[in-house]
Amino acid sequence: MKNTFGNAITVTLFGESHGPAIGAVLDGLPGGIRIDEEYIAARLTQRRPSGRISTSRREPDRYEILSGVFNGYTTGTPLCIIIRNEDTRSKDYDNVSRLARPSHADLTAMYRYGGFEDYRGGGHFSGRITAALVAAGAIVMKALEDKEILIGTHISTCGGISDRDLCAEADLRALANADFPVLDEKAADEMEKKILEAASEGDSVGGVLETLVLGMPQGVGEPWFDTAEGMLAHAVFSVPAVKGIEFGAGFAITEMRGSQANDCLRTDGSKIYTETNNSGGINGGITNGMPIVFRTAIKPTPSIFKEQKTVDIKSRQNAVLSLKGRHDPAIVHRAGAVINAVTALTLADLLAVRYGADWLRTGE
Amino acid sequence: MKNTFGNAITVTLFGESHGPAIGAVLDGLPGGIRIDEEYIAARLTQRRPSGRISTSRREPDRYEILSGVFNGYTTGTPLCIIIRNEDTRSKDYDNVSRLARPSHADLTAMYRYGGFEDYRGGGHFSGRITAALVAAGAIVMKALEDKEILIGTHISTCGGISDRDLCAEADLRALANADFPVLDEKAADEMEKKILEAASEGDSVGGVLETLVLGMPQGVGEPWFDTAEGMLAHAVFSVPAVKGIEFGAGFAITEMRGSQANDCLRTDGSKIYTETNNSGGINGGITNGMPIVFRTAIKPTPSIFKEQKTVDIKSRQNAVLSLKGRHDPAIVHRAGAVINAVTALTLADLLAVRYGADWLRTGE
Amino acid sequence: MKNTFGNAITVTLFGESHGPAIGAVLDGLPGGIRIDEEYIAARLTQRRPSGRISTSRREPDRYEILSGVFNGYTTGTPLCIIIRNEDTRSKDYDNVSRLARPSHADLTAMYRYGGFEDYRGGGHFSGRITAALVAAGAIVMKALEDKEILIGTHISTCGGISDRDLCAEADLRALANADFPVLDEKAADEMEKKILEAASEGDSVGGVLETLVLGMPQGVGEPWFDTAEGMLAHAVFSVPAVKGIEFGAGFAITEMRGSQANDCLRTDGSKIYTETNNSGGINGGITNGMPIVFRTAIKPTPSIFKEQKTVDIKSRQNAVLSLKGRHDPAIVHRAGAVINAVTALTLADLLAVRYGADWLRTGE
Amino acid sequence: MKNTFGNAITVTLFGESHGPAIGAVLDGLPGGIRIDEEYIAARLTQRRPSGRISTSRREPDRYEILSGVFNGYTTGTPLCIIIRNEDTRSKDYDNVSRLARPSHADLTAMYRYGGFEDYRGGGHFSGRITAALVAAGAIVMKALEDKEILIGTHISTCGGISDRDLCAEADLRALANADFPVLDEKAADEMEKKILEAASEGDSVGGVLETLVLGMPQGVGEPWFDTAEGMLAHAVFSVPAVKGIEFGAGFAITEMRGSQANDCLRTDGSKIYTETNNSGGINGGITNGMPIVFRTAIKPTPSIFKEQKTVDIKSRQNAVLSLKGRHDPAIVHRAGAVINAVTALTLADLLAVRYGADWLRTGE
Repeated sequence: MKNTFGNAITVTLFGESHGPAIGAVLDGLPGGIRIDEEYIAARLTQRRPSGRISTSRREPDRYEILSGVFNGYTTGTPLCIIIRNEDTRSKDYDNVSRLARPSHADLTAMYRYGGFEDYRGGGHFSGRITAALVAAGAIVMKALEDKEILIGTHISTCGGISDRDLCAEADLRALANADFPVLDEKAADEMEKKILEAASEGDSVGGVLETLVLGMPQGVGEPWFDTAEGMLAHAVFSVPAVKGIEFGAGFAITEMRGSQANDCLRTDGSKIYTETNNSGGINGGITNGMPIVFRTAIKPTPSIFKEQKTVDIKSRQNAVLSLKGRHDPAIVHRAGAVINAVTALTLADLLAVRYGADWLRTGE
Repeated sequence: MKNTFGNAITVTLFGESHGPAIGAVLDGLPGGIRIDEEYIAARLTQRRPSGRISTSRREPDRYEILSGVFNGYTTGTPLCIIIRNEDTRSKDYDNVSRLARPSHADLTAMYRYGGFEDYRGGGHFSGRITAALVAAGAIVMKALEDKEILIGTHISTCGGISDRDLCAEADLRALANADFPVLDEKAADEMEKKILEAASEGDSVGGVLETLVLGMPQGVGEPWFDTAEGMLAHAVFSVPAVKGIEFGAGFAITEMRGSQANDCLRTDGSKIYTETNNSGGINGGITNGMPIVFRTAIKPTPSIFKEQKTVDIKSRQNAVLSLKGRHDPAIVHRAGAVINAVTALTLADLLAVRYGADWLRTGE
Repeated sequence: MKNTFGNAITVTLFGESHGPAIGAVLDGLPGGIRIDEEYIAARLTQRRPSGRISTSRREPDRYEILSGVFNGYTTGTPLCIIIRNEDTRSKDYDNVSRLARPSHADLTAMYRYGGFEDYRGGGHFSGRITAALVAAGAIVMKALEDKEILIGTHISTCGGISDRDLCAEADLRALANADFPVLDEKAADEMEKKILEAASEGDSVGGVLETLVLGMPQGVGEPWFDTAEGMLAHAVFSVPAVKGIEFGAGFAITEMRGSQANDCLRTDGSKIYTETNNSGGINGGITNGMPIVFRTAIKPTPSIFKEQKTVDIKSRQNAVLSLKGRHDPAIVHRAGAVINAVTALTLADLLAVRYGADWLRTGE
Repeated sequence: MKNTFGNAITVTLFGESHGPAIGAVLDGLPGGIRIDEEYIAARLTQRRPSGRISTSRREPDRYEILSGVFNGYTTGTPLCIIIRNEDTRSKDYDNVSRLARPSHADLTAMYRYGGFEDYRGGGHFSGRITAALVAAGAIVMKALEDKEILIGTHISTCGGISDRDLCAEADLRALANADFPVLDEKAADEMEKKILEAASEGDSVGGVLETLVLGMPQGVGEPWFDTAEGMLAHAVFSVPAVKGIEFGAGFAITEMRGSQANDCLRTDGSKIYTETNNSGGINGGITNGMPIVFRTAIKPTPSIFKEQKTVDIKSRQNAVLSLKGRHDPAIVHRAGAVINAVTALTLADLLAVRYGADWLRTGE
């Protein structure tokens, strides 16, 4: 449903980069989820441009909850959370208002909305909109944490540099407080170097994000169509710059034999587990109780300062684009917070479909 | 919505491997799509086990349309198409009825449905159900063809062997009639050899499928959530054995600089096109008029004849599984027909959302 | 979603009067609902034309469950139930194939489906389709009964004759086995007389149905939009011939003062109840634990034998219609079974949204 | 979907009476609908408490559009419109915070949300939320007007007084500017007298609203379930205080013979019309091109000043309620604006499903 996602717990997203505000409506939450304001702020900070390697646009990302919260807990009625757009320098975009930025949505938005779209700063297609997604996602992500379902994402590879494996609960705790979501400090330094190198050339880099979910109950997912994988993929492709997703062994599984790929089952008498996790925690679209693991391909930021051949949307003439203003040489380090948010929203929805939304109530 | 997918044109899937019938209901079709019985049969044949490298189970896949067709055209009311299960040798499965097959849905189905699931032959999770998906998909795939929107899938790599590039309309025409969906004959022979090699060892192989869509109109897709990529990925992960999907340059784009990854825009005065297609025909979740390209990772068939460690679901004891019966050493060559079907269903839905379902009427 | 209704438990309807079969797919049911074949047959019998006052068309209404049931219980995967069309005398309809029957869907179906609709016997708009609805509804209606949620409908008024009040559980038990859904035998006789009187003049009558639900848990309904009233009304207007619905005191409440209309609250220490039930068991769209009561207006059967002015759809000329064939002089006595079915489907869906579908499992 | 309604054009509602703001998100609108700020304000004024017969609470209902509008036209991306709550005297509600108001949602909201609901002023169940519905509805109502689809509602009966028939376009134009939606001035005066009479006794009255839609295209509606009647009824029951709805001749049709009830068809050579309109413009759930007519039963305002028996929600003891504060002795005159809004939202959605949303673009 266009800007609404989910079946039992839905998120509806709205806003443009240079309009009055961006926001989201969460519906279907149970009453009684505790709102942790600091937690929401921390998630927004992880998404926010910061440090040397990000755009100098500094939105404070001060959110306001308009509805659905009373005395510090969700009421069970729709929760609308908004973030005002404050630091919008529209002039920076004047020179690109007619020149479509390659591999951006400028041209396709015009195709889709017939020229009525708000093109300033990418409008509804701006990465800024993800702040609303992170804010809404933080509310359910905290609710999941209170049920001991932990979600975290690190940069698996960027600029040819790889992080160490993400596997343990301690890793997730570390990522929850990280500025730059990489476990190995040396790898982090090298990745930053690669990003700055590209930036100095007016260019940009991408990377692969890896997400780990621990504690997810078994038996969750609604085949044939609303499988755990299908729903997660659906949500993840909403995140700008994502061009691929793979679960468990992913594309590498295509080079294995069945006897290598299959996850043998074992039991210790009480719990059934698998010896390997090539399935990424999901079989037949339903969670099997093992960690959920998936990786997403994040393309290099399309806004670069190098000259690019493009087309003037209005005159329909060939042209050359020279971008000015503020643009990230990479968003892969910021995208993790958004992937976490959509993961939380998707899993909360699937859990609510399976057990009823009250399952998520704090303290139950 | 569990077993229903789509917004304007929906498909609802039902059936178990050893129940009376499998089938699908298509709703939201316009009146006036011509039904091409031969075309449907041809699509079912491409999915059907055949030749040396597939299971010897031979279902004739004779479908019956129960509703929604009158005088050879769709009526615009729901079209139910069913396929009876005829050749079901339940005895083959007797010895596995309590032993969960590793990396199958046996265990997770029990988690999800509480032990009430029909476990015979994988029940609702059997690959057999995809025959209903292919039958339903064939109806809209033909309607798209009549609008010059062509869909085709080949095996990009299997067993370390790669096919040549899939790019031209002639390739799609060739694949439409192919038994084994590979463009290069020599590559086809070598892949078959690899599959038979694995089979002779009681093992199985997977592969990567690549799908190409030509003629898709621009401006189709419903961000933020019902993007062209998100909807396709959602549908594709319903296909059993899929563990990953990537669009355009996919995961390889993460190793490019922005200046390499961006698809420069050009115009010839009338049409706007991109010089490269790393975006796979989609920007911001909306089609840009270039070919849609995506690849899916198909895991090796999990049913193998080698002994595997597993768990007895009922006694909850560790056990060893020795499968008998008929099982494919690969399904990658059959899965292409299913990927085509879900691609057709998804694109038809997105087109109907954008232009109204009547857009798909034959001859309009 | 056109031919699909519900959020957590959905029903998808298909079929035409003179096509191969009609049917329905139930999705979202939990595994473990016991299938009571006799119960389904009994519900179908109540809807079936019978006795002196109904059409002589005698469909045996033999249903077949194609999927979703194993060992006598639902599996939790989609349940498809079909009924073959056997006794279809298409010739009877030949003379009306171009003359739109007044107050039927003949003309509007042509507007909607562009002339591709199957017009034989009303096609997808035939009352016959309700047999599939009744069959699907019977499955959940029995599940609700096992949870002590009882649903029943009687003819409140017909032809100027009124039945006595429907209020007690014993009344519901009586209606469950009734041929003609009227509690007072004398009223039943008089209503039949009125119907036959109209029939003898080639005319038809309508009536008001009243539905009572006992045992519905409190706290069920999803405002603002998916209220208990809104969902029930939505479903009920799918039943052909319904032109109105009212809950509790209904339209009569508009003539009361607030002090008369309000249902005062009382408690006996454990349970909270209302002294009156003008609200019909629902406040703010949520059940309050009192009986749900609503009435539906059923119009006289539009198929009558009197001459009627109409239009030839093809030639677009004024014409006179003289119907032949078999047509009920009333359907009000048969419509109760359909109202019961859609009520059961709607309440089961709302319960599943609230508590998860497993709540409906037999024996839990 | 709880607080979201519609298929192609959806409205999502949020807010509580005493929270920061109420609002709505419209999604699926085409780009290019002109925003008429005065028109929106006029619709809000019609819903606003005013004059002698309404509560003295005076919210200015100043709305703010947060997204989805650019240069005075809709962009095609989600439009969020909010209204801040300004004049909220929470103290007035202190004494009722534990005493459930009879026939209000106080008790059922507690059942549904587990005690976490914001109970101040009725919270999410306050009639105040309808202001957001009216604001959102005004945007599409104006778009429909620009397509010559006119919607209007008058008080058909109130306090035993009846208005004259609503039938002509001139009547709709008159109602568009009316403070008190009654066509006959003398009837208006008498109704006001009846309302004030009840008010002077601390009591309240209800009434019947009648809605007329002119200019609706034929062939709109999505049977079996998303019929024009079913969708309208679904939406209308969201409006607080509605207890019934009937289309065309409604409940009165149950007393007619088929020969009286049927709407004979005629043609003037170009257009097909019906001689009577007992069907209320809809057959088989699809519009027939005649005026859409329906009536809704509005119960007397449940907030009255007379003492009422009730229950203390917290202590679960019987109690007596004496309301203070500001409460309307009737809302029937204000509810018309809300019925118009949900009618516009529903018809716009059905039109967008049928023809694609672009059909609603201004000037097309």
